[in-house]
Amino acid sequence: MHADQLITGIAQLVTAQGPHARRGTAMSELHLLPNAAIAISNGRIAWVGPEHDWHDTAKATVDLQGAAVLPGLIDPHTHAVWAGNRLADFEARARGATYEEMLAAGGGIRSTVRSTAAAPQQELIALATPRIAALVRSGATTIEIKSGYGFSVAAELAMLEAIAALTTQTSARILATLLIHIPPTDPTERRTYIEQVCTTLIPIAAQRHLASAVDVFIEREAWHCDEAETIFACAQHHGLAIKLHSDQFHSIGGVELGIRMRALSVDHLEAAGPTQINALAASNTIATVLPGVSLHLGIPAANGRSLIDAGAAVAVATDLNPGSSPLFSTAAALALAVRSNGLTPQEALTAGTINAACALGLHDRGRLEPGCLADLLVLHSNDWRDLLYTLGANPVREVWIGGRKVQPGGTKVTT
Amino acid sequence: MHADQLITGIAQLVTAQGPHARRGTAMSELHLLPNAAIAISNGRIAWVGPEHDWHDTAKATVDLQGAAVLPGLIDPHTHAVWAGNRLADFEARARGATYEEMLAAGGGIRSTVRSTAAAPQQELIALATPRIAALVRSGATTIEIKSGYGFSVAAELAMLEAIAALTTQTSARILATLLIHIPPTDPTERRTYIEQVCTTLIPIAAQRHLASAVDVFIEREAWHCDEAETIFACAQHHGLAIKLHSDQFHSIGGVELGIRMRALSVDHLEAAGPTQINALAASNTIATVLPGVSLHLGIPAANGRSLIDAGAAVAVATDLNPGSSPLFSTAAALALAVRSNGLTPQEALTAGTINAACALGLHDRGRLEPGCLADLLVLHSNDWRDLLYTLGANPVREVWIGGRKVQPGGTKVTT
Repeated sequence: MHADQLITGIAQLVTAQGPHARRGTAMSELHLLPNAAIAISNGRIAWVGPEHDWHDTAKATVDLQGAAVLPGLIDPHTHAVWAGNRLADFEARARGATYEEMLAAGGGIRSTVRSTAAAPQQELIALATPRIAALVRSGATTIEIKSGYGFSVAAELAMLEAIAALTTQTSARILATLLIHIPPTDPTERRTYIEQVCTTLIPIAAQRHLASAVDVFIEREAWHCDEAETIFACAQHHGLAIKLHSDQFHSIGGVELGIRMRALSVDHLEAAGPTQINALAASNTIATVLPGVSLHLGIPAANGRSLIDAGAAVAVATDLNPGSSPLFSTAAALALAVRSNGLTPQEALTAGTINAACALGLHDRGRLEPGCLADLLVLHSNDWRDLLYTLGANPVREVWIGGRKVQPGGTKVTT
Repeated sequence: MHADQLITGIAQLVTAQGPHARRGTAMSELHLLPNAAIAISNGRIAWVGPEHDWHDTAKATVDLQGAAVLPGLIDPHTHAVWAGNRLADFEARARGATYEEMLAAGGGIRSTVRSTAAAPQQELIALATPRIAALVRSGATTIEIKSGYGFSVAAELAMLEAIAALTTQTSARILATLLIHIPPTDPTERRTYIEQVCTTLIPIAAQRHLASAVDVFIEREAWHCDEAETIFACAQHHGLAIKLHSDQFHSIGGVELGIRMRALSVDHLEAAGPTQINALAASNTIATVLPGVSLHLGIPAANGRSLIDAGAAVAVATDLNPGSSPLFSTAAALALAVRSNGLTPQEALTAGTINAACALGLHDRGRLEPGCLADLLVLHSNDWRDLLYTLGANPVREVWIGGRKVQPGGTKVTT
């Protein structure tokens, strides 16, 4: 083999092995290779093995001088495009205000919708670019971004177009999801919006390749299961994958609907009970937990421990958004999942790599194996566990996407 | 006035006003000045006011072009000097191991003691320097560092000497505390150690100015109140201030002892009940809460809300240490205090500035007023609340100590 590039000096190479999501006890089974090397050609991994087993040639060699190397993280749930801020809500919540009081004061999600609608595309891109850069610095190499602050066909398409344009501004690999977020308060408008979503929004988004999946927020105060089912059926008819916000505050059937319709993932699950957990364990749908939301809102964290013990495949995401999860680090989401959702470090790494990739329907990343995209992290540390252990600092030294070092990461605090 | 330096372009200047700790509802009373300027001479603040009110001259002017400026943060409780790591403990805890099982496996605090004892001073300094740099990047300008991984007179003095030497390696202002941490298991050795502490360790530390305070860890499994009282009386006899680790797991009288002996602060308080809270509220002792410990160990957070509502003066610290709080950001400790300890953003800023300074017995910092040290933060944002709001990224753009920009901070994610 004559590789484009050889990476040596890898003290520890740690990866899940694929291509399928790992569930239950298999989430702990990481492949750990000391003194490893990686050969890269055409932006993909050509070879992985012990450094002394490499006997071929490479055009260039990079010596990491003894660092831990992990697969690039995948952040499968963000709302990274928004305008305005929610600092007044943050302050009001800390003073004990209810969400209803925040809405009455002009805050809440509708304030983000107003600000986002008022922002030109260039402004949305300029605002989102440093947020994406922060996620990349923390180790994310593939990032899902949702629309959902539009609340009209035109505004949702504008958000999807901003996400598409953003893709050219960042080194990260971006996947766009069309999110059907909050329904109109008027029942007639609510029915009309579903019609517009199904007859106009989804067909245009699919035809113009503006989204690869459709997401619906299922909650007592949001969309209900029968409405979501209509939207999902339309999405699937147009060749789009489906995923759900469900069981955040109440279990009203979203998990069961998602499993029945073969959703890629059901996300949130803070209110999921044994019935939902066992159903997820018996399905191929990924259970995505969002520890930033629990931390920021002070709601109970999703029971990641029970999900894994039951046999489910768990993923973790930042849910980066201004109202309920201002968490600008994918690595920190994994570190929080160990503290808040009961994951072990091994499970958290699996949740943030291969399982997160599968939550996006992607099977060519989230692991370091021949044929996969050469997306990887170099830590400051020579022990991969520092990725999950470190709080309040960025343990990532370098982020590589497609075989190229795209961004320096944080600064060294551990050995 | 002819100042050394004028800082202009301050969109928002926010500070508590001093010199005394703020308690109860007064913790919310911040002084907020839009379009401000600060004049600096001889490393101290010479003037603060609306920019258009400045009519004097300065040798140099720095235009911040519209950023929020806050007092430099004070981190009044860290154990930033250690060798070895506790990654095995971290992994074992995530798998559900008890502390006893971790000790049996060779982990726990005694493993840090072994590693620290085995490390030469130069290694201790090299290991601690990037940790201190991380705290400074997060906004800390004065940092307390404790000994306490020595467990013998010689080893504690070696730690204090390492802290003294470290002081010359960092731009932060360092205060050293002698911590009497974990007692010997043998009752005779336990009594002997107290004797050595009082006849040798404290006198030498005081005489050589190696510590400004003595701290004792009071807990069922650590030192008891009668022992701590002996140590504290000796400390005060030698002119040192006193402070306590108390009420972390059990209330065994540490709060009451600390108040009676006029301790600067009682730190932890996770297990403090109404009696302790009301006693603190009626005292001049600062109640220091440590949200990193609650997050990392999964123990209940100290009830900051009740402490403030009762009228206590609350401070916040990272408690940076390898076993129970690997939290490398003072700003993140404040952000966590809003989520975990029930503080408002205003209260958290007070807790991390003026009250934290008072917890170290310092009255010349932690606020932006004439005569105070010119230690300050510049945020990426023009809204000071972003310091507390942002999770997983560093909202600090610049850190100034003694009127000089010492370190770039994080990267912009908010506006």
